[in-house]
Amino acid sequence: MADKKLGVWMVGGCGNVATTAILGLVGLQKQLAPTTGLVTELREFAALPLVPWGDLVVGGHDIREPNLRATAGRLANEQVVPRELVEACSSELEQIDASIKPGIAYKAGKAIRALADVPVDDDATTAPRELISRLQNDLKTFIEANDLRGLVVMNVASTEPPLEAELPDRWEAFDELLNQPGADIPASTLYAVAALELGLPFVNFTPSAGANFSAVEELTKRKKICHAGHDGKTGETLMKTVLAPLFAERNLEVLSWVGHNIFGNLDGRILDNPENRAAKVATKDRVVGGTLGYDPQTLVSIEYIESLGDWKTAWDHIHFRGFLGTLMTLQFTWQGCDSALAAPLVLDLVRLADVASRAGNVGALTPLAAFFKHPLGTDCHHFAKQHARLLDWVRVTSEQMAC
Amino acid sequence: MADKKLGVWMVGGCGNVATTAILGLVGLQKQLAPTTGLVTELREFAALPLVPWGDLVVGGHDIREPNLRATAGRLANEQVVPRELVEACSSELEQIDASIKPGIAYKAGKAIRALADVPVDDDATTAPRELISRLQNDLKTFIEANDLRGLVVMNVASTEPPLEAELPDRWEAFDELLNQPGADIPASTLYAVAALELGLPFVNFTPSAGANFSAVEELTKRKKICHAGHDGKTGETLMKTVLAPLFAERNLEVLSWVGHNIFGNLDGRILDNPENRAAKVATKDRVVGGTLGYDPQTLVSIEYIESLGDWKTAWDHIHFRGFLGTLMTLQFTWQGCDSALAAPLVLDLVRLADVASRAGNVGALTPLAAFFKHPLGTDCHHFAKQHARLLDWVRVTSEQMAC
Amino acid sequence: MADKKLGVWMVGGCGNVATTAILGLVGLQKQLAPTTGLVTELREFAALPLVPWGDLVVGGHDIREPNLRATAGRLANEQVVPRELVEACSSELEQIDASIKPGIAYKAGKAIRALADVPVDDDATTAPRELISRLQNDLKTFIEANDLRGLVVMNVASTEPPLEAELPDRWEAFDELLNQPGADIPASTLYAVAALELGLPFVNFTPSAGANFSAVEELTKRKKICHAGHDGKTGETLMKTVLAPLFAERNLEVLSWVGHNIFGNLDGRILDNPENRAAKVATKDRVVGGTLGYDPQTLVSIEYIESLGDWKTAWDHIHFRGFLGTLMTLQFTWQGCDSALAAPLVLDLVRLADVASRAGNVGALTPLAAFFKHPLGTDCHHFAKQHARLLDWVRVTSEQMAC
Amino acid sequence: MADKKLGVWMVGGCGNVATTAILGLVGLQKQLAPTTGLVTELREFAALPLVPWGDLVVGGHDIREPNLRATAGRLANEQVVPRELVEACSSELEQIDASIKPGIAYKAGKAIRALADVPVDDDATTAPRELISRLQNDLKTFIEANDLRGLVVMNVASTEPPLEAELPDRWEAFDELLNQPGADIPASTLYAVAALELGLPFVNFTPSAGANFSAVEELTKRKKICHAGHDGKTGETLMKTVLAPLFAERNLEVLSWVGHNIFGNLDGRILDNPENRAAKVATKDRVVGGTLGYDPQTLVSIEYIESLGDWKTAWDHIHFRGFLGTLMTLQFTWQGCDSALAAPLVLDLVRLADVASRAGNVGALTPLAAFFKHPLGTDCHHFAKQHARLLDWVRVTSEQMAC
Ligand SMILES: NC(=O)c1ccc[n+]([C@@H]2O[C@H](COP(=O)([O-])OP(=O)(O)OC[C@H]3O[C@@H](n4cnc5c(N)ncnc54)[C@H](O)[C@@H]3O)[C@@H](O)[C@H]2O)c1
Ligand SMILES: NC(=O)c1ccc[n+]([C@@H]2O[C@H](COP(=O)([O-])OP(=O)(O)OC[C@H]3O[C@@H](n4cnc5c(N)ncnc54)[C@H](O)[C@@H]3O)[C@@H](O)[C@H]2O)c1
Ligand SMILES: NC(=O)c1ccc[n+]([C@@H]2O[C@H](COP(=O)([O-])OP(=O)(O)OC[C@H]3O[C@@H](n4cnc5c(N)ncnc54)[C@H](O)[C@@H]3O)[C@@H](O)[C@H]2O)c1
Ligand SMILES: NC(=O)c1ccc[n+]([C@@H]2O[C@H](COP(=O)([O-])OP(=O)(O)OC[C@H]3O[C@@H](n4cnc5c(N)ncnc54)[C@H](O)[C@@H]3O)[C@@H](O)[C@H]2O)c1
Ligand code: NA
Ligand code: NA
Repeated sequence: MADKKLGVWMVGGCGNVATTAILGLVGLQKQLAPTTGLVTELREFAALPLVPWGDLVVGGHDIREPNLRATAGRLANEQVVPRELVEACSSELEQIDASIKPGIAYKAGKAIRALADVPVDDDATTAPRELISRLQNDLKTFIEANDLRGLVVMNVASTEPPLEAELPDRWEAFDELLNQPGADIPASTLYAVAALELGLPFVNFTPSAGANFSAVEELTKRKKICHAGHDGKTGETLMKTVLAPLFAERNLEVLSWVGHNIFGNLDGRILDNPENRAAKVATKDRVVGGTLGYDPQTLVSIEYIESLGDWKTAWDHIHFRGFLGTLMTLQFTWQGCDSALAAPLVLDLVRLADVASRAGNVGALTPLAAFFKHPLGTDCHHFAKQHARLLDWVRVTSEQMAC
Repeated sequence: MADKKLGVWMVGGCGNVATTAILGLVGLQKQLAPTTGLVTELREFAALPLVPWGDLVVGGHDIREPNLRATAGRLANEQVVPRELVEACSSELEQIDASIKPGIAYKAGKAIRALADVPVDDDATTAPRELISRLQNDLKTFIEANDLRGLVVMNVASTEPPLEAELPDRWEAFDELLNQPGADIPASTLYAVAALELGLPFVNFTPSAGANFSAVEELTKRKKICHAGHDGKTGETLMKTVLAPLFAERNLEVLSWVGHNIFGNLDGRILDNPENRAAKVATKDRVVGGTLGYDPQTLVSIEYIESLGDWKTAWDHIHFRGFLGTLMTLQFTWQGCDSALAAPLVLDLVRLADVASRAGNVGALTPLAAFFKHPLGTDCHHFAKQHARLLDWVRVTSEQMAC
Repeated sequence: MADKKLGVWMVGGCGNVATTAILGLVGLQKQLAPTTGLVTELREFAALPLVPWGDLVVGGHDIREPNLRATAGRLANEQVVPRELVEACSSELEQIDASIKPGIAYKAGKAIRALADVPVDDDATTAPRELISRLQNDLKTFIEANDLRGLVVMNVASTEPPLEAELPDRWEAFDELLNQPGADIPASTLYAVAALELGLPFVNFTPSAGANFSAVEELTKRKKICHAGHDGKTGETLMKTVLAPLFAERNLEVLSWVGHNIFGNLDGRILDNPENRAAKVATKDRVVGGTLGYDPQTLVSIEYIESLGDWKTAWDHIHFRGFLGTLMTLQFTWQGCDSALAAPLVLDLVRLADVASRAGNVGALTPLAAFFKHPLGTDCHHFAKQHARLLDWVRVTSEQMAC
Repeated sequence: MADKKLGVWMVGGCGNVATTAILGLVGLQKQLAPTTGLVTELREFAALPLVPWGDLVVGGHDIREPNLRATAGRLANEQVVPRELVEACSSELEQIDASIKPGIAYKAGKAIRALADVPVDDDATTAPRELISRLQNDLKTFIEANDLRGLVVMNVASTEPPLEAELPDRWEAFDELLNQPGADIPASTLYAVAALELGLPFVNFTPSAGANFSAVEELTKRKKICHAGHDGKTGETLMKTVLAPLFAERNLEVLSWVGHNIFGNLDGRILDNPENRAAKVATKDRVVGGTLGYDPQTLVSIEYIESLGDWKTAWDHIHFRGFLGTLMTLQFTWQGCDSALAAPLVLDLVRLADVASRAGNVGALTPLAAFFKHPLGTDCHHFAKQHARLLDWVRVTSEQMAC
């Protein structure tokens, strides 16, 4: 088994984040890309038995026709990735296209369904269980075809609208519901269940529901498998979790925290849809109050500005009160390339979920909180504490696995 | 002794920081000021036997005629402190004036000497030892007159130019040099020696040399007394120590970090003098490379812009490289009121130096690193780690002193 | 008549803008206030026979109980006006309260009606004509009581929601409609008609409808009276009309222009109501495309952030394309005090409307376009051209009136 | 002659600005580049008999070995110009290299001399007149070889240190001085004299001295030829000349105007040299006071930050006082690509200087003030007025030349 490879399964494999991650991975494999931006390449991770880049094999699901090379070319135009790298890796990208299979858009909302250009299933008459079986077939086929030692399923698909119905708390009832045609369970959750039932770790990089249900958590315990999420923390929210502790630790009172985000990629176009945006704003907005221990007035907007492409600009205005009531202001402007920030974290999470799974970790991986806007299983939003917690886990796990 | 009070001795007692701290202290004593901005009022400090605000008595040295009430009135005009508070505390301020004694400006540079409107001593013919004796007399008189159980000496005087001469490494030689008329040892160091020889803790809130000499460190060991410094961390540098770790922990490569600071108070006027500025820029500039572990191009400017008064505006531009070489930018604008940020830290440091001294801490107080731009005795500039270190000390010291 | 005074009638006389303008006027009369911010005090206006500040007498309408002194005190707390000036002028402010009469809130929308603490009239059963008569009585009484040579009616009341119904184009039909109980004509228009029918100039400093109807324009022609509007241009929009021409004149292509405005005064609270905000955003958004001659993507938001009080902060992000397609960015942050920016323009407009009316100008005063976000009677949004047009009018009118 | 072409002679032909302008020109000739950024392509210029892009032929002087294709390739890497355009125009760029001749670096300062990798002439023993003759030979050879109807000489070479010596006011004395070996007259002026003596228009896009001497102005009158300058206005200063009038026209008092510029191209490296910087800062700093009519505190810095390449970022902080003394702030951040901003203006100036020269304009071309930080022959820094003045000239000249 030591010689076997590990699979990475990208749900939303044709998207910007997936394409940048895949291009980067191929670049790392061909030693054409430096390791900047990869957390698992920090020296503190050296003792952890991380899968080498060369041992990863990529497949995925999407609801659009795959053409990684064309997408990577467009990203090069938008100055997200270097054109030379795209050219050097184009044959590998073309090959990976063949491993990206038609996904599902069940209960994923109108905006997402409108994206689909491969056949997706009818919401009204299908039972979720049928869809799960189809997804599991794809996963098993990929594992066998590539003789893999395992597979990490990574959700980097478009953000679904938040769920309205309440779902059963226990796995038995949840499992039953999966047989009910038209049951109100979104695609992201079906992907999660598909992976976890097969004993494969699932990582949710998006604000979609995914595995965030106590019933699904119960499933992970039964299957003794781990999962992580949700919503990758890459820009403005990352800044919030770095700056809010400063105000708390200096006993400065935050009166209001306003954050405006503008960007113009496909993710932005989907999020421009009010129902999809709701999910995102919720994970972004929770952070400030969570860290401070009280709730200043907050405002978070996400707006689609086409000319910006994948470049997200956030302006934050923080109004705070100091000693003797003096009012002061901190403003920042973050000009980040969304996919270039997300992609290395996606690769890091594949490696870390793999190690966690080999180390026998079960349920929500709270030591990975630093990677997420809304970390599952913990309320801690303090970035430095999250990072310290991660390094503790790295130490403990390194020692455990060395034995 | 439980009933005795503690003295606070402000070197530079007529300045903006001192005046704001004194006004705030009186306000706290009269229960007219909230505790916003005071770190020692965070709940994590509750078990520490901190001196109550009501048990503090203020005196100090300055080279200008004291008129705290007038200074506080000017600060109210500049919207640094509330006018009502100044009015409510004016008789107390007037009384404190009487405890602010003429200081020394020995080897403090031209810009500072030009400020003096009370008689200061001639550089050329005086031996430092004579000046120290005079200072010590003032301290002892104040302690006796007020029947104090102790005194914390706090340097909040103007920033001196950096020292040029090398000073002896061992206390014996240093002590001898103090007898040599015209010896090249700046006022801030004489204040430090005066305090430490009397077994009184010394805190250096400024970038001036103060106790930053191995000979003086040796003195603290002999006298079994503690000291802390240097250069209070209140604005742009505080931000740097919060943000630089983010780049390190996400493996993002900082290419350049530019910081421009503009402000218009007396401190700014003194720092506008290139020789005085050198000291400040040095402590500010050390931080980024210190945290990252490599040296990106940095630029720090401090400019005197009169119209801004005590309001410091800093613009920082951070250029960094992410995954696959993508270049990104973070900018921030900090609009802070310098004295309102510094004053509560000065009060915190008095309390903490007092506890440390009662707990028997000796030498440079490294657990207080979070308060300083250039913390003595440690290379750690990572704010969250500094704060965690402080809380550890608080826990340990609370337990130790509870026994 | 040369000895008679001129009246200023503030509709919304208890608001922030009105209070700041009135305080400033009293300050100018008592020679306690400098002329900074007053356009009519520029030397180019020296030859124009402007009413001296001492010859102005203030009255007004509001739907809230007047207490100018208390409002001015609150504005002093928020650092909008100097406390000393409020104290020095408090008896004058108290006297003016007596001249602020209960107004009307007919068809002014729920948010505004909810403000009222003086009796206002029932929308459903009253005919607009009755309300107009009541308003006219107040105006005539004020003119007589103060033996005025004229009166300028200035609308600085809260922003009404935009009108839904189409109104008749000709005055005759419009006039008839005024007799119909419950007719859908908003308060601001009734104030305008009340003034114009009496031959008094009307200025609309708000985005409310006011005199912006061809029927009302016809009335001004019949009555040979002038009016001006609408929506005072004081901050972000002013910047837009200054900067957009730059891009046009350098042939740089604006791709997107995003503007976020945050502030926390009563105006902001009313505008936080989506229906009222619609009127404001419309006047703010029209400007960029109007100047450039094509329509880049624009976004304008106005958000109520309580902690900011009267201090409006706007962040604008302008994304543009230069030679050979290079994409570049300009960002600005405007931190202005809304009422301090608006008040002098209100006083300027009183003086200019008075001169225009004496000079026999009829209908919409297009030379005053520089003062408004949506200038009536012209499509020109180019600030420098508007200012040049104003100075031309000043020259011509000065000459005309010198004869 | 109607069929003959016009020459463009780039002094500093290998630099970023020249390369971008040349690439753009070739792109325009091959109809591969849009006209964005070109002022002369605005519809207001349609009636002016501008030389068509296809009728321009490029040559130049530089002190470095020409390799336009390599430079353009580097600019594509830095995202200043599109790589596809560089590829499409590479054979034309290679051909133009042959027309870039070794220039002179006489009295151009150490930093510039250190750049030279082609032989330049010794300062100490050469007489300026010899150098001028050599330059004139190059110009005449180019004209003949290409059978040109004329030639515009454009200075886009590195910024020289400001001149220290006073030069004679009259041409006769100046001319004599040119014969004196080692006379203190910088290269830029020798280029100017070389052109003007041959009756060729000279444009100075740099802050170097060039033709800014009354003696040289006299020469232009004698030769009946025109010239323009100096220092192209492309970024922060452009913004200043657009924004300062706003404050003046609204009677807002500017208290301080701070501008920090950071960039990392070769121009920046040269300007990082204090003596060269002096020239630039002087032209940038003059603007604010010039427009306002009084002198607020100003600060202008230009700093070389390597990682930024050709991308200049300027942060400006404007502190101003409004009605009743209220202090407010405007900040802007300009992120522009220096060469992409400068290049189209260089092409515009070639066309306009050509028309002016054909129309018989003599001496400094004040109607072109809008293009320059320090326009010769006028004190007007008000951008909108400068632009209006330009359009007036366009109208008058169009009519004149139509006859
Ligand atoms: N910095 C970041 O980019 C960042 C940070 C945090 C979270 N995220 C989240 O990551 C996700 C991906 O972002 P992106 O920029 O790549 O977006 P994208 O729109 O470029 O890609 C999303 C992809 O998912 C596919 N897809 C949609 N629904 C699907 C489904 N039900 N099954 C399979 N494929 C589906 C789409 O066809 C598309 O190819 C988004 O949810 C985004 O909110 C991104
Ligand atoms: N945020 C902050 O305000 C901040 C942060 C870090 C450090 N500091 C440092 O704190 C110090 C005080 O700042 P400030 O704003 O109050 O300055 P300030 O100029 O208002 O006050 C300094 C005072 O020190 C006095 N003084 C100067 N030399 C003296 C001497 N030799 N002996 C006695 N008194 C002397 C001056 O007369 C003056 O009253 C400065 O060194 C400053 O750099 C301030
Ligand atoms: N910079 C600026 O402040 C600025 C710029 C342009 C336009 N404006 C507009 O000026 C107006 C006033 O702004 P403000 O900040 O003073 O607001 P504000 O809310 O402080 O004052 C508005 C006043 O109008 C009164 N009012 C409301 N409806 C009324 C009615 N029908 N009749 C009589 N009084 C009525 C309210 O009671 C209140 O006293 C707003 O419409 C605002 O949008 C302000
Ligand atoms: N936005 C702008 O880029 C802008 C705006 C205004 C002014 N300028 C000025 O334009 C000039 C060119 O800018 P750049 O970015 O192209 O600089 P650059 O350094 O890229 O190019 C300057 C070129 O001039 C050459 N040179 C130097 N001295 C010379 C001499 N005596 N004779 C002939 N060639 C000489 C150098 O070898 C180099 O090739 C600079 O003076 C700059 O300050 C540029
Ligand atoms: Na200070
Ligand atoms: Na340049």
